[in-house]
Amino acid sequence: MLASYGIESSKVSKKEKGSLHMTMMTADQYEESLRELNLVVYMFGERLNNVVDNTIIRPSLQAVAKTYELAHLPEYEDIMNATSHITGHRINRFTHIHQSIEDLVKKSKMGRLLGRHTGCCFQRCVGMDSLNALSIVTFDIDTKYGTDYNKRFLKYLEYVQENDLTCDGAMTDPKGNRRLPPHKQSDPDLFLHVVAEKEDGIVVRGAKAHQTGAVNSHEIIVMPTISMREEDKDYAISFSLPSDADGIVYIMGRQSCDTRKLEAGTMDQGNLLYGGHEALVVFDNVFVPWDRVFMCKEFEFAGELVEKFASYHRQSYACKVGVGDVLIGASQTIAEYNGAEKASHVKDKIIEMNHLNETLYCGCIACASEGKKEPSGTYSVNTLLANVHKQNVTRFPYELSRLAQDIAGGLMVTMPSEKDFRSPETGKWLEKYYQTHPDVPTKDRMHILRLIENLTLGTAAVGYLTESMHGAGSPQAQRIMISRNVNMEEKKRAAKKLCGIDDKS
Amino acid sequence: MLASYGIESSKVSKKEKGSLHMTMMTADQYEESLRELNLVVYMFGERLNNVVDNTIIRPSLQAVAKTYELAHLPEYEDIMNATSHITGHRINRFTHIHQSIEDLVKKSKMGRLLGRHTGCCFQRCVGMDSLNALSIVTFDIDTKYGTDYNKRFLKYLEYVQENDLTCDGAMTDPKGNRRLPPHKQSDPDLFLHVVAEKEDGIVVRGAKAHQTGAVNSHEIIVMPTISMREEDKDYAISFSLPSDADGIVYIMGRQSCDTRKLEAGTMDQGNLLYGGHEALVVFDNVFVPWDRVFMCKEFEFAGELVEKFASYHRQSYACKVGVGDVLIGASQTIAEYNGAEKASHVKDKIIEMNHLNETLYCGCIACASEGKKEPSGTYSVNTLLANVHKQNVTRFPYELSRLAQDIAGGLMVTMPSEKDFRSPETGKWLEKYYQTHPDVPTKDRMHILRLIENLTLGTAAVGYLTESMHGAGSPQAQRIMISRNVNMEEKKRAAKKLCGIDDKS
Amino acid sequence: MLASYGIESSKVSKKEKGSLHMTMMTADQYEESLRELNLVVYMFGERLNNVVDNTIIRPSLQAVAKTYELAHLPEYEDIMNATSHITGHRINRFTHIHQSIEDLVKKSKMGRLLGRHTGCCFQRCVGMDSLNALSIVTFDIDTKYGTDYNKRFLKYLEYVQENDLTCDGAMTDPKGNRRLPPHKQSDPDLFLHVVAEKEDGIVVRGAKAHQTGAVNSHEIIVMPTISMREEDKDYAISFSLPSDADGIVYIMGRQSCDTRKLEAGTMDQGNLLYGGHEALVVFDNVFVPWDRVFMCKEFEFAGELVEKFASYHRQSYACKVGVGDVLIGASQTIAEYNGAEKASHVKDKIIEMNHLNETLYCGCIACASEGKKEPSGTYSVNTLLANVHKQNVTRFPYELSRLAQDIAGGLMVTMPSEKDFRSPETGKWLEKYYQTHPDVPTKDRMHILRLIENLTLGTAAVGYLTESMHGAGSPQAQRIMISRNVNMEEKKRAAKKLCGIDDKS
Amino acid sequence: MLASYGIESSKVSKKEKGSLHMTMMTADQYEESLRELNLVVYMFGERLNNVVDNTIIRPSLQAVAKTYELAHLPEYEDIMNATSHITGHRINRFTHIHQSIEDLVKKSKMGRLLGRHTGCCFQRCVGMDSLNALSIVTFDIDTKYGTDYNKRFLKYLEYVQENDLTCDGAMTDPKGNRRLPPHKQSDPDLFLHVVAEKEDGIVVRGAKAHQTGAVNSHEIIVMPTISMREEDKDYAISFSLPSDADGIVYIMGRQSCDTRKLEAGTMDQGNLLYGGHEALVVFDNVFVPWDRVFMCKEFEFAGELVEKFASYHRQSYACKVGVGDVLIGASQTIAEYNGAEKASHVKDKIIEMNHLNETLYCGCIACASEGKKEPSGTYSVNTLLANVHKQNVTRFPYELSRLAQDIAGGLMVTMPSEKDFRSPETGKWLEKYYQTHPDVPTKDRMHILRLIENLTLGTAAVGYLTESMHGAGSPQAQRIMISRNVNMEEKKRAAKKLCGIDDKS
Repeated sequence: MLASYGIESSKVSKKEKGSLHMTMMTADQYEESLRELNLVVYMFGERLNNVVDNTIIRPSLQAVAKTYELAHLPEYEDIMNATSHITGHRINRFTHIHQSIEDLVKKSKMGRLLGRHTGCCFQRCVGMDSLNALSIVTFDIDTKYGTDYNKRFLKYLEYVQENDLTCDGAMTDPKGNRRLPPHKQSDPDLFLHVVAEKEDGIVVRGAKAHQTGAVNSHEIIVMPTISMREEDKDYAISFSLPSDADGIVYIMGRQSCDTRKLEAGTMDQGNLLYGGHEALVVFDNVFVPWDRVFMCKEFEFAGELVEKFASYHRQSYACKVGVGDVLIGASQTIAEYNGAEKASHVKDKIIEMNHLNETLYCGCIACASEGKKEPSGTYSVNTLLANVHKQNVTRFPYELSRLAQDIAGGLMVTMPSEKDFRSPETGKWLEKYYQTHPDVPTKDRMHILRLIENLTLGTAAVGYLTESMHGAGSPQAQRIMISRNVNMEEKKRAAKKLCGIDDKS
Repeated sequence: MLASYGIESSKVSKKEKGSLHMTMMTADQYEESLRELNLVVYMFGERLNNVVDNTIIRPSLQAVAKTYELAHLPEYEDIMNATSHITGHRINRFTHIHQSIEDLVKKSKMGRLLGRHTGCCFQRCVGMDSLNALSIVTFDIDTKYGTDYNKRFLKYLEYVQENDLTCDGAMTDPKGNRRLPPHKQSDPDLFLHVVAEKEDGIVVRGAKAHQTGAVNSHEIIVMPTISMREEDKDYAISFSLPSDADGIVYIMGRQSCDTRKLEAGTMDQGNLLYGGHEALVVFDNVFVPWDRVFMCKEFEFAGELVEKFASYHRQSYACKVGVGDVLIGASQTIAEYNGAEKASHVKDKIIEMNHLNETLYCGCIACASEGKKEPSGTYSVNTLLANVHKQNVTRFPYELSRLAQDIAGGLMVTMPSEKDFRSPETGKWLEKYYQTHPDVPTKDRMHILRLIENLTLGTAAVGYLTESMHGAGSPQAQRIMISRNVNMEEKKRAAKKLCGIDDKS
Repeated sequence: MLASYGIESSKVSKKEKGSLHMTMMTADQYEESLRELNLVVYMFGERLNNVVDNTIIRPSLQAVAKTYELAHLPEYEDIMNATSHITGHRINRFTHIHQSIEDLVKKSKMGRLLGRHTGCCFQRCVGMDSLNALSIVTFDIDTKYGTDYNKRFLKYLEYVQENDLTCDGAMTDPKGNRRLPPHKQSDPDLFLHVVAEKEDGIVVRGAKAHQTGAVNSHEIIVMPTISMREEDKDYAISFSLPSDADGIVYIMGRQSCDTRKLEAGTMDQGNLLYGGHEALVVFDNVFVPWDRVFMCKEFEFAGELVEKFASYHRQSYACKVGVGDVLIGASQTIAEYNGAEKASHVKDKIIEMNHLNETLYCGCIACASEGKKEPSGTYSVNTLLANVHKQNVTRFPYELSRLAQDIAGGLMVTMPSEKDFRSPETGKWLEKYYQTHPDVPTKDRMHILRLIENLTLGTAAVGYLTESMHGAGSPQAQRIMISRNVNMEEKKRAAKKLCGIDDKS
Repeated sequence: MLASYGIESSKVSKKEKGSLHMTMMTADQYEESLRELNLVVYMFGERLNNVVDNTIIRPSLQAVAKTYELAHLPEYEDIMNATSHITGHRINRFTHIHQSIEDLVKKSKMGRLLGRHTGCCFQRCVGMDSLNALSIVTFDIDTKYGTDYNKRFLKYLEYVQENDLTCDGAMTDPKGNRRLPPHKQSDPDLFLHVVAEKEDGIVVRGAKAHQTGAVNSHEIIVMPTISMREEDKDYAISFSLPSDADGIVYIMGRQSCDTRKLEAGTMDQGNLLYGGHEALVVFDNVFVPWDRVFMCKEFEFAGELVEKFASYHRQSYACKVGVGDVLIGASQTIAEYNGAEKASHVKDKIIEMNHLNETLYCGCIACASEGKKEPSGTYSVNTLLANVHKQNVTRFPYELSRLAQDIAGGLMVTMPSEKDFRSPETGKWLEKYYQTHPDVPTKDRMHILRLIENLTLGTAAVGYLTESMHGAGSPQAQRIMISRNVNMEEKKRAAKKLCGIDDKS
């Protein structure tokens, strides 16, 4: 099944190209590679025959494709490419294991760049974060138990890098009753677990929820979702599979305004090119060969894997800074179209939007810049600051959206459809009454308003707002991590010393 | 044309009922009365044959119908009914001219009540606010000029009260270039104006944007949108017309997720019963008989009319407190369904939601409670506090939405469609993996999540968020009014006195 | 001991004055009445011989005196006076039991008025709130037990009203270990309690902390500080005493910048006239005659008394709106002195200050306007809204202070002393370099900056900020009350109904 | 005059010490060096004979001394020391010109470290920032005009480094009428300017306001305060002088609670060891030799110097993160002393404090990490992010203070004096009634409360709050810089492309 990608041949030719070993797919090659997959995908109650050309899903594919496209542009080479530490080949940074602080910083910049180019979630960071987390934790398990997970992992990593694959990182279990651990749930499958262990591999059952970009991925990398105790060891499991492995079923989630993509025309969708998607991924007794298993019942490492992945993934919310760039650009544009861009309160709101957006940028840069080297050689971000960054991401995009709606004006939600604009009976009225200035085509004003609607209420709002809230862990998860990672004793000592308390502690 | 409602007959029978003269329609009568109208309505580029049964518009009709329904329930009688000061008849409060502080306070409570019952904009307050503003300003014009606008108005008012009509209050012109006054616009129609004056009436041309509930109204009451100078006197115009008067054209606005209402099923729409709508209303050389004209070129009263209407209408955002009740109720429900209602951070977020919502309530109660009697006898709200209230409405619902999304969890935006839930192939997986507790049916969990989606991203978000921002004037409009209505001299004197500055001013 | 005030004689003459029975003291009479007291007061480790003329305490006396002074001014008569429901005499509203919604609203307005006149805490509301709470709870105890507390209370009330006394309301016990109830504390006195019961009265021991205005009061009214169970019944005690009763000891609290009042000159103190004070009040085996006892071991009413008092007292934070007026006036004045009042960002900050301040005003008006009649006949405020109001008071004054410091500029904290200004050597430099405009005397600029310093960092900040935080209960106390007083079931029903959940509950 | 320090001799011996050339003073040496100065300092209207031992000033001296002390501790060597790029000697980082990104990041960390050690402003960063800004701008002027400012500057720099001097950076002029440029002011001295040009140097007149730490400095480095045009060229002036040069007069500013330092005892001052100070510095016809002049009438470089200095100095507000550490430590300590540290709302507030404080940290790290090399070789911080960082510093410390006051409880402002605690008459009551737990000495509880008072209302609040607001430029200054430094065209292009607007611009 691993051969099912059919991308080996195209790779071969590239490898011949010359002294610089290039393993990076183009956007077209990426799309073709997805066509080779045989995914079991359901949407609106029916199985899809063709995922790649599905009108609702396609914008999300195009967003992932952007991660391939930009990697070939010279101006983004430094940010989008890296050199593999295992093969020395030039690779797409999304398959790279961070080898330095600089790598970590570039990852944040890559996120902002792609967010600005797509105006949405481009889905590929979750795989990168999974790979990096596993590069650390497989090493640490081996160190303790003498296992060979890291070796397996590195072989798998080379495969991913050489074939420039997109991986879905699958962490969040359905979790059932939030107050009970996995083994106490009424249905044991509410957390994904090993149901059989065989000579050649294991069989797993369960599901992963909220899987962003799942059906645009070649691979799925599964990790546990919480720290675990011995009683839950069957749930302490990590592995990878081709996304079209037998027994994996994808059920697509709905998004606000999803069916607008089915409508004809180009005005009402807001973002005409890109989008995201979410899916529930069911593992219905799926077989995993041993060389794809990266953790198996070493329950005491489940927490570490969650934490490492979470920290990387919280950094990844650098992307929302890029989406913020789009929203700020759209707000400035509508202000100009409305002839309001010189009003002092509008200028001040634009400044506030920029201030908040750049404050987010500070977070994703700082957690990278303050990263450190793990025993495995991988560089990890600063856990405290990554959590602080993500916590701000659960707040500021909402305020940016509020300000954008303020600047946009009420027309954003009272504007008739493109069909009305195209209709001979009503189009003339819209042209006449939505005009603000002869230099501003009415349709451009409508276009930009639909983009703001898309980002603050529509399909992109799912990514920019709700995913900012819950992706990579809900706000409370970050607060717990902040609480654990600050050095309170140092702060208490400093305070006591200054006011003359003799502290023996 | 005025007879076109065909509701005279039904009224007659009610009037016979007994000693208590009842002029209030039932919800059914209201619906029937709308069927008699002959509105010219366009949506998605086509003219609608049947507005009342249109699937997208109908929920908004039902929300207005609620204002008729509750008026007949004994438990809401005190809030929903009033006694006409011109006929002494028991009337629906939405047609009432406020005769006391108590009336003003009850108006705020009526708004919250209906917001809680509908979870959306019920559209009828704008007409009530127009009537009340005109009751003051027509009196004031007459006082200055000896005209008989107030007499005309009172006759019209009696007609509205006796027939229990829903009126659209139409204020916002398209405004074109925001930096130019009406008479300087490149297209003179960008503000509505008189184009001809005849013996029996006037002819007007222009448009009104953002008309909430326009096609659910029997009447449309037009007012100017800004203060005006003499050069703009042709734009200083106020009048009423039956909503189906010749030359009036309605073009329906789109809303986030509007077409979900066209889908079969009951789960994905969130609010199954109620909604709002917005329309662009074009006046294409429309004739208005003199007895329907309430201001004609008395430009110096345009500002007063705008301000009185705006203050009443800013008070009307009491309704968002009721919608906030729904959102809080939904958040508490999903917390319970998720088994998270006892987590201290969840409890604290629910408290914060209530705190913000009740702070809004304080605003709409206080501006009513501090109202005063106008020369006409009408009670007006406290202008300063009404603006303060509305300013908070441009902020707090956004934070309430953010908190609701926090509590709801990511499933709100990753959940598959009802069709997937009903499908034999995928329904079993959703039932299995979205279960949290045996006592919580999975479909109920999905229902409540769709309601939160509806309120924070979907059709209701248009009303709860964007309309809260721009309805009754954008935030900056309130800030200007706050600036004008505070007594800065008194504050400066107080400060100077305390610190020993000898102030001769 | 009750005769120790020596104010009977002055009353007599007033009572003779005419048909309108006036029982209100003048500010001078108030000051004289305090001179008659024999309080045991310690400050800076020493007992004070003369409290009334103490330089640090005197501004707080003058603030209380303002409540007497304004009551005699015709323009404030309506707000400051009331008619006693027991004697029919005209009384100072601070001794009044609220007989209507109107009384409650006027109380809020009186608070704002005095806050604006004094720029600080005027200390007298706590007694008014204690009297009103006791008027309700003594009635309720009697209803259950057939006791005669209410009769005793009304006799005491008449005494207070007829003599126009200032009462300190003493609620907050030291509380020791916050996790233990009164009877479990290592030191039983950490909550005030009955230590002996005699034929003619009781003996009590303990202390009350944070007693605002204690040494400016004629009377002290003691109440329990928390809900209690039977084991704590000795702590469920309420009574009143003359402030100079044997065994009562006052230890004055320090305030930021307190000793500036001892300095010569008039510039550096900020508020030249008024201030507040706080004291720890120790009850060292104090005897209370039975006719002064209003609750004795009826533990199940302790909670009601706390809640009633707290709600009234949270309303009383109306005063901070008045202090906010002063801060806004000072900010506008310094903006003008700096020549910055027309900068758009300064205007916007002033608007924001007003917006926040008026939002607070809405809270104290609304909780009054939504008040209700208790069985005793007293009107109580709306508990939910009073708590919402106070919660905002724990937030907005801090933001107002921040904005004031923004507008003021750095000079507020870098400006030399008045002595430098008066010095021939340095005064010339200050005159020269602190000049902004010929029309603005440098000393006036320095005066107003010191007032802002006083309000945001100095003695008045104690009242405007920290007391706003903790007075009448800390923020968390209000959140608990908000949680208890919202109708969550109604909200949940509303939400479920709208999204189609069949709720049997 | 330059020899007046008398520190040459002590240096000589150090230089002999060995192979590692050490030029760093100890804290004691620093204090001694200050004794050699002959400053003209006024406070409370009188000239000070002894600045170093003045009770009010001394804590600020001790804070500066900390920058010398920590530089000798091995654990802080990496942060506190650097290697001079001109001499190769090991120097105190406060005299260093940043040679790399790493240097910039360490500067931020040094700020936090010292903020945590002193709990106040340690005053020495302003000189470091002046030196770094001049290292860039003198080079740029020379490049344009072929002048030799940079050479002069480097010679001066070597002198500063070799003698480990503390420099005051003096930028802010009194500014008079804010709407007029320097040459239009009624008094030409309201901005500092050249009044005579001589063969051996220039004579200057004017003043610099808000000079933090001025009288603890060996040197004063003067820079212009705004961008200038040709008409203002006499004001475009930069130079350095020994702090005791003839004609320089210091007038000390007052601070909240300043005179508490004069009181006996150790409890009431809060921070027993450290503090800050501010002064007005008057230049009364002061002579500057040419080799101390770094800009003279090159008006077009005034703006660059302001901007470079401002960006560095906005980064320097890293120190407030360290003060935040102290406030958080104090809040956690008082929570523990109060027995409230396990209450969920208290834990949540501590997390919020940490979250805000670490968000600030992200800002000062990110603007350093994103720094770049200037033509002169000096590394400058990222201007946009430095301004974003400082903007947050104008907000978050206020919220941290509010939360600290919430956690502290009301006792912080109602607690009696140390004298009361020491008094045999009242001490027993305080011991008894302020006890919370046998393990918590009452005096420790009082100590920590006084520290929180100090930081939020007292002398340290001047630095932590008001200086955070206005130091390195008021909030609006940062907003203007944010506005100028974001790439709005890029954002607009991104938005337009996504929604299909064909943008020719």
